[in-house]
Amino acid sequence: MRRKARQATKPENRPRFWGRHAVAAALGNPERTIARIWATREAAAQFDFGDIPVTFADVADLGRLVPREAPHQGVVAEVEKLPDLWLGDLLDQAEDGRPLLVLDQVTDPHNVGAILRSAAAFDALGIVTQDRHAPPESGALAKAASGALETVPWVRVVNLARALEEMAEAGFWRVGLTGEADMTLAEAMGPARIALVLGAEGEGMRQNTETHCDALARLPISDRIESLNVSNAAAIALYAATVARG
Amino acid sequence: MRRKARQATKPENRPRFWGRHAVAAALGNPERTIARIWATREAAAQFDFGDIPVTFADVADLGRLVPREAPHQGVVAEVEKLPDLWLGDLLDQAEDGRPLLVLDQVTDPHNVGAILRSAAAFDALGIVTQDRHAPPESGALAKAASGALETVPWVRVVNLARALEEMAEAGFWRVGLTGEADMTLAEAMGPARIALVLGAEGEGMRQNTETHCDALARLPISDRIESLNVSNAAAIALYAATVARG
Repeated sequence: MRRKARQATKPENRPRFWGRHAVAAALGNPERTIARIWATREAAAQFDFGDIPVTFADVADLGRLVPREAPHQGVVAEVEKLPDLWLGDLLDQAEDGRPLLVLDQVTDPHNVGAILRSAAAFDALGIVTQDRHAPPESGALAKAASGALETVPWVRVVNLARALEEMAEAGFWRVGLTGEADMTLAEAMGPARIALVLGAEGEGMRQNTETHCDALARLPISDRIESLNVSNAAAIALYAATVARG
Repeated sequence: MRRKARQATKPENRPRFWGRHAVAAALGNPERTIARIWATREAAAQFDFGDIPVTFADVADLGRLVPREAPHQGVVAEVEKLPDLWLGDLLDQAEDGRPLLVLDQVTDPHNVGAILRSAAAFDALGIVTQDRHAPPESGALAKAASGALETVPWVRVVNLARALEEMAEAGFWRVGLTGEADMTLAEAMGPARIALVLGAEGEGMRQNTETHCDALARLPISDRIESLNVSNAAAIALYAATVARG
């Protein structure tokens, strides 16, 4: 897919990824530029860093490069953010049976990371977020994604309502998840191309997002609790879409 | 349900819960002893603390009582851990259609908290963990549980294999989730009483836990990623159990 040109980020604004899984995934992604690496000699022995500048450091030094108590496992990478993707290019690759995930104002990096991981697990086409209401790439997000940040296409759009219109034009049936719907998730499934739309916890989808859905569906949850964690709701929706296509 | 007698905890070992949702849920649980509360005057106005000693504090003081950047929302409660529950008492309350969750070595407090939240959402009978391989009650766990720590019975057992035998005697069909199984989750469902058994991420269930399951099942995930986050896997399993009983 084409990626939009992007200027190199100032070093102090570059995300730092940590942990063997996240760093190995970044190394394996040809689209990812890694500016520099810090590692213990022991951890470094397990990687091929190629031409990337490496600074050997001890565990305590690495601890100061990442948030407190982050499990860095002896390796930290300073990276450039991935270049932006175009929604049109993602939709051109649509295939029957591969769901698309749309997140409206989901801002917690752990949740977005876990959603990327589930998107990879269920072979989703990609995820779409609104630029101003989504977290930037970060170490915590990459860790939660467990490598999927490097493999699942993530399109950031300026206008989510317009993006939902483009999805409809590309043949996607847009199912919005909300506790207030009458239809269950299983009932709302069916057509071959599904876009699953999820809103922020508590507030849910914005009104204008909801009006751009073809169907609204609820998860079969009890009234013992208000809502599910959004990454758990996304995982269930992806599972339901997978089971529905048989 | 009976709870085992437990001595009062030393103040320095008492969990601290923070955030309005977690504190409101603790206040609403007759089994929960709250030793003291710190709150801003603004936040305190929204609660009825009854006889609990309250210290008024400003936002910065509260910040020093909780982990860095914890969203305390103006209220922190120092609590006693809940008294222990007996597995036999939980099994005596079994009803057809209400699943039981068994966690083998799931130690991350955010994951266990999110699993409690999903357990409440899908009206599970309760969760069972092995005492030495489960996280203690904590602020982070209570926050992730979004109130469900106070409402979902959580039994800690010494011997998980023996606990699985007791579940079988109580009529539970024990389904272990593992990527290596041939059967899908939907195929493994059926009987009215289901115990869903999940292992730690990466390592999965221990061998002795697996041999105490009646069926092993896998989630229909692609080979693009090794595994799902364990709380996402639990949410999907609970959803599948709910859908299976129609």
